[in-house]
Amino acid sequence: MDIKKILENDRVKPYVLKARYGLEKEGQRVDLTGQLVNTDHPENISKSDDHPYIKRDFAETQMELVTPVTETLKELFDYLESIHEVAYRSLDKNEMIWPLSMPPELPEKEEDIIIAKLADAESVRYRHSLAESYGRRKQMISGIHYNFEFSEELLQALFEAQSEVTEFHQFKTEIYMKLTRNYLHYRWFITYLYGASPSSEKNFFNDNSLVEPVRSIRSSKYGYVNSENVQVSYSSLKKYISDISALVEKDVLVEEKEFYSAVRLRGGSQVADLEKRGIGYIELRNIDINPFDKNGISYEQAEFLNLFLVYLLWKDESVHHDEWVKEGELNNEKVALEHPLKPTQFKDEAETILEEMEQLVKTLELSVSDKLFVNERDMLNDPSKTIAGRLYKESQQVSQSQLAVKIAKEYHEKAWDMPYQLTAFTDMELSTQLLMFDAIQLGIQVEIIDRQDQFLKLKLNDHVEYVKNGNMTSKDSYIATLIMENKTVTKKILQKQGFRVPLGEEFNNIDEALRSYALFAKKAFVVKPKSTNYGLGISIFKDGAAYEDYEQALKIAFKEDSSVLLEEFLSGTEYRFFVINDRVEAVMARIPANVTGDGEKTVEELVAEKNKDPLRGKDHRTPLEKIQLGELEILMLKGQGMQINSIPKKGEVLYLRENSNVSTGGDSIDVTDQIREDYKKIAVDSVAALGAKISGLDLIIEDIEVPASNNKAYGIIEANFNPSMYMHVFPYKGKSRRLTMNLLYYLFPELGKMK
Amino acid sequence: MDIKKILENDRVKPYVLKARYGLEKEGQRVDLTGQLVNTDHPENISKSDDHPYIKRDFAETQMELVTPVTETLKELFDYLESIHEVAYRSLDKNEMIWPLSMPPELPEKEEDIIIAKLADAESVRYRHSLAESYGRRKQMISGIHYNFEFSEELLQALFEAQSEVTEFHQFKTEIYMKLTRNYLHYRWFITYLYGASPSSEKNFFNDNSLVEPVRSIRSSKYGYVNSENVQVSYSSLKKYISDISALVEKDVLVEEKEFYSAVRLRGGSQVADLEKRGIGYIELRNIDINPFDKNGISYEQAEFLNLFLVYLLWKDESVHHDEWVKEGELNNEKVALEHPLKPTQFKDEAETILEEMEQLVKTLELSVSDKLFVNERDMLNDPSKTIAGRLYKESQQVSQSQLAVKIAKEYHEKAWDMPYQLTAFTDMELSTQLLMFDAIQLGIQVEIIDRQDQFLKLKLNDHVEYVKNGNMTSKDSYIATLIMENKTVTKKILQKQGFRVPLGEEFNNIDEALRSYALFAKKAFVVKPKSTNYGLGISIFKDGAAYEDYEQALKIAFKEDSSVLLEEFLSGTEYRFFVINDRVEAVMARIPANVTGDGEKTVEELVAEKNKDPLRGKDHRTPLEKIQLGELEILMLKGQGMQINSIPKKGEVLYLRENSNVSTGGDSIDVTDQIREDYKKIAVDSVAALGAKISGLDLIIEDIEVPASNNKAYGIIEANFNPSMYMHVFPYKGKSRRLTMNLLYYLFPELGKMK
Repeated sequence: MDIKKILENDRVKPYVLKARYGLEKEGQRVDLTGQLVNTDHPENISKSDDHPYIKRDFAETQMELVTPVTETLKELFDYLESIHEVAYRSLDKNEMIWPLSMPPELPEKEEDIIIAKLADAESVRYRHSLAESYGRRKQMISGIHYNFEFSEELLQALFEAQSEVTEFHQFKTEIYMKLTRNYLHYRWFITYLYGASPSSEKNFFNDNSLVEPVRSIRSSKYGYVNSENVQVSYSSLKKYISDISALVEKDVLVEEKEFYSAVRLRGGSQVADLEKRGIGYIELRNIDINPFDKNGISYEQAEFLNLFLVYLLWKDESVHHDEWVKEGELNNEKVALEHPLKPTQFKDEAETILEEMEQLVKTLELSVSDKLFVNERDMLNDPSKTIAGRLYKESQQVSQSQLAVKIAKEYHEKAWDMPYQLTAFTDMELSTQLLMFDAIQLGIQVEIIDRQDQFLKLKLNDHVEYVKNGNMTSKDSYIATLIMENKTVTKKILQKQGFRVPLGEEFNNIDEALRSYALFAKKAFVVKPKSTNYGLGISIFKDGAAYEDYEQALKIAFKEDSSVLLEEFLSGTEYRFFVINDRVEAVMARIPANVTGDGEKTVEELVAEKNKDPLRGKDHRTPLEKIQLGELEILMLKGQGMQINSIPKKGEVLYLRENSNVSTGGDSIDVTDQIREDYKKIAVDSVAALGAKISGLDLIIEDIEVPASNNKAYGIIEANFNPSMYMHVFPYKGKSRRLTMNLLYYLFPELGKMK
Repeated sequence: MDIKKILENDRVKPYVLKARYGLEKEGQRVDLTGQLVNTDHPENISKSDDHPYIKRDFAETQMELVTPVTETLKELFDYLESIHEVAYRSLDKNEMIWPLSMPPELPEKEEDIIIAKLADAESVRYRHSLAESYGRRKQMISGIHYNFEFSEELLQALFEAQSEVTEFHQFKTEIYMKLTRNYLHYRWFITYLYGASPSSEKNFFNDNSLVEPVRSIRSSKYGYVNSENVQVSYSSLKKYISDISALVEKDVLVEEKEFYSAVRLRGGSQVADLEKRGIGYIELRNIDINPFDKNGISYEQAEFLNLFLVYLLWKDESVHHDEWVKEGELNNEKVALEHPLKPTQFKDEAETILEEMEQLVKTLELSVSDKLFVNERDMLNDPSKTIAGRLYKESQQVSQSQLAVKIAKEYHEKAWDMPYQLTAFTDMELSTQLLMFDAIQLGIQVEIIDRQDQFLKLKLNDHVEYVKNGNMTSKDSYIATLIMENKTVTKKILQKQGFRVPLGEEFNNIDEALRSYALFAKKAFVVKPKSTNYGLGISIFKDGAAYEDYEQALKIAFKEDSSVLLEEFLSGTEYRFFVINDRVEAVMARIPANVTGDGEKTVEELVAEKNKDPLRGKDHRTPLEKIQLGELEILMLKGQGMQINSIPKKGEVLYLRENSNVSTGGDSIDVTDQIREDYKKIAVDSVAALGAKISGLDLIIEDIEVPASNNKAYGIIEANFNPSMYMHVFPYKGKSRRLTMNLLYYLFPELGKMK
């Protein structure tokens, strides 16, 4: 079949770069000096052997980060970065991840390398047999496995554009077999560009037979390879399967997975499954860890690999399959052992490949990053720009080990910089980012089904839960959230059940409201739109209102909503009670934006100082918002006889807003442990009365020392069906309450039993 | 205490007309000729003895309609009208309700009056004892009981504006005792205005001792009164209670409720409770049925009664309580037995009352209907304008009985006019109106907690369910509805579970979508905004698209939403599968607006003819919408080479719309019994996959004869979390599926057991 022609088919071309990806990346845990640690895998990461994202590889210190399968490279890297952040922030603060494929200095005694303390006895036995066959040291090399699958659309389009192969599974197998042979033939090119293990550290080698530096110890025979007698043919899938089976049968390999080829054919749990189902995807195992990217591999590398695979599919191969592969092995060995700063002996061939790849991009109208070929061409022209070259060169100033420590520290610090976010997902809500963080840590699979809409699918074993906006879940009924959404309905239900709510009336037109002036004229009351938030359109009259002011307030409120509530005004502090499944998990005092004078600084300076808090930012990207000095704040100052350049007295607290929302610069202060139990009971009971399971209940309490049963001790203002969680996790003051974790334990009660 | 002064207090005035109301109205079931029927209470009305709205009074034929307690007269009449409509439409079509207080011709043999066949033996026994004491005939008189309670706010304000009485319950009791005595003293005025039982029908009286016509047989000693030896004092609550207790003890009364005063003091289930709790409200029992209002009492009457009660509270009474009441009884008897067309002997006193009432309205700044005093003054000046006067006068032309039959028929027909609506609630959605109808019929208490927001509280015994927009309930989880709301998420989940959905992609900006042109250029596909409805912004390309058209379609779609879906186009008919609790309860074919030619009429004429169907209306107030002949329809005609004055051939079906929504004139055709079981199974299973309980699933099916398992036999377009129910209850063609009833049985499974 003429694959080149088929690829150029108009029905095929649009799908050429569509693929599915998955990445595994290993790394050793070290202390801040770069020494391998003696500690166990972190406590807070679920230790389940089948944690989907953070596993242990051969050794207890060897973390393996695993992404889910993704449909785009962007998603792949979003996950990879996030899993890194979870791993980093789950480590003891004195630990970090070694950024090189070659392990740090190893213990003198090989037995001091601790094999991963897995629960599954079979897995532990397997590691012991590996230790026996290859030695524990060799198993400490880390790397990246890049799983690649052509999209179903592409394969279908290719299949339909030819007629030689009539069975789709067989067709797929032929595609992947060719790709694999070509990859094995040309993989020296990847070793040249991305090889990144030039030198070993102390106690890795027993002898000095390898002359360092090289391009990639790991990809050479000094790396992680099977013994000479493991020979497997790629001439056909059948041969591949029977060769591996024979090796296992003859006990040359303990298990099928002990076959360490640069490419593993995947699909099904056993090699034999491949025959039935065809090859599902391939796993490239020859990628060294790139220390110059915090993820161990850059987006550009992955994109180049993708294109390289398409190129290899397109590129003719020799009909002498075994020789073709063998030749590739030999060439790779040569390149792997070249000096990293010297040009490769295959420079001409490499140039041809790059040219042909560029040409292919044009012919197939593929859309790739602008700089893609620029960088790779630079690497080809200047070996010191290859990863191995750069690593070796920079190591010369200090030592490879010191450089690695420096780099590791940088990533370590970066991961802790903004502990409330997942850097790859800052377009999503903070609470959702925190929930994803916790889910990853707990070993719950996270799939983003609609990123813009904050829609997650969470999966733990066979248990699936969907979550939107952090805490919209299956636990609440639809009607309960609709009840909470409607302030009038909420109040009616709570009042009927005997809870204290501000009394008042709803009006659907201004005339009706005006006619009721007499009912409110002499009272403390609030005018507010029925369903808007953030304090918009609200007027407060603490001591009655003149008719003109009453009318004005109604006009303002009716601008925001077609229904307006007139309610009794309750004085006191606003508290947010966060109830999950009939328990108050957090209580937060919400204080309007304010500064405290020191007798020296102006209001403006005090605000600037308070805004320095790294938790304060803009547009809800941080747990707190910077205090503004806009119209409303200046008006509020004026009401207190102040201006922005006034100097408040020492200890004087100056409020800059009437409303207490965190979103307008307010302070969030955790008071969970300070609040009387009777108020918590009221919160739990009233949320239950609304039929809700997850709710943020806002209470006004005049004096939290006074029993709730006292006359007018409290009033329930509203119940929020999607209360933000992040402000409790990162409060301005007081204890952090990790509500996202509470929520996950509520959604997945089996987590409690797994602990 | 100076109640007049207190009422004028500024803190009291705003609440003077605030009150709570409740109404009971009896009426005999008759056939279309006005003969009492022999049938049982209707089967479809729950026969539970404690049906909250539709009960049986003394006789099996005597329906008692009971409103819930309401806070406004408007609500009271909305309920009263609705309960009437439910009662009418639950009757056999040959039955109607007798519109007079005096019963229709009674059976010659008294025993042929059938006592209500209640389940409770005690209730049946009580009726038998009444039959014995008073005779069955007298018990056949019907009337209205008007329950009245001053609002808590008014009572509190009154209480706080005085200092003589220190205990609130006692204060309330004094207020109601005064009111009651004054009402008993002045009730002749109500008898004059609203008395409406001038003549009896055949077999009511055994003798001719009463000279008819009078103003009100019912309010006279010939009506429904206790024997002479039943004398109860209203001088104090204590005396009232002890008098009644004594009468029961001496067996003069069988039960406390046998005391038939014009005013009954209420609060608690036993008269003795009144002492502990104070009087809760009063029940006026002397209101005759007004045949000239379909509800048996007009809004104006109720408003006048309200004002009259305020007036009686204001008006001084005599300190000689017993005499004061006695005098009232005597005066009432006089007025009741006056000729209905003659002026009353108390005309002067009546004029004073009207003047004082008008003055009171001014003094207390009360807002009442403009015509209130005009009509009542007319009645005073012209007795033929009183209800009794009018009834007697109009009866003279035919007979009272014939007039009653004529009026009853009118109400009967009116109730059947628009069987899909509750006339008092046409501002609410049709599905909500139908649900309310069914709930009332089933004896489920319906409370409207937010009318604008279609928020209902349904209660059956202790079981409460909240419902919004007809079918948003506690049965669906919040996340399930959010899943259904998001077309992309819905599709992803369904696809993963193996259901067939149109393949496609979501784009969040137009450039990204433009770059993907190649993926769609040669396919049949649809461009649509992600979350809008009613077919807005949708473009269909049945055979690929030129780049310019593709771009244009994207622009149109992005105008409607920030996310746009590009989907494979599925051809076939659209079916709505309505799933409730894992069962397909209805399937509807939805056909775009269309007309079928007859070879004679123009398109315009055919549309006009089709629009005559009484089910077709405008703005969702009817089950079907009128077909428009707007821009889109004309464009669609043009595409078929037609204009609005073209004459389609006989049998030719002409589509006027691309989309099949009923809201744009489409036809709804019930095909529940015609759809293969395998499609129903797909609907049930896919709704379950979404975690939903109530859903309207839209399937495109090319040929409903073909098994669902066939390749591309169907495609699921979307799942609706708030699918309209009314179009299934009143389809254009096919069998009606009363989904509102299914829903109520789902919400209240105990209904099934009660049956």
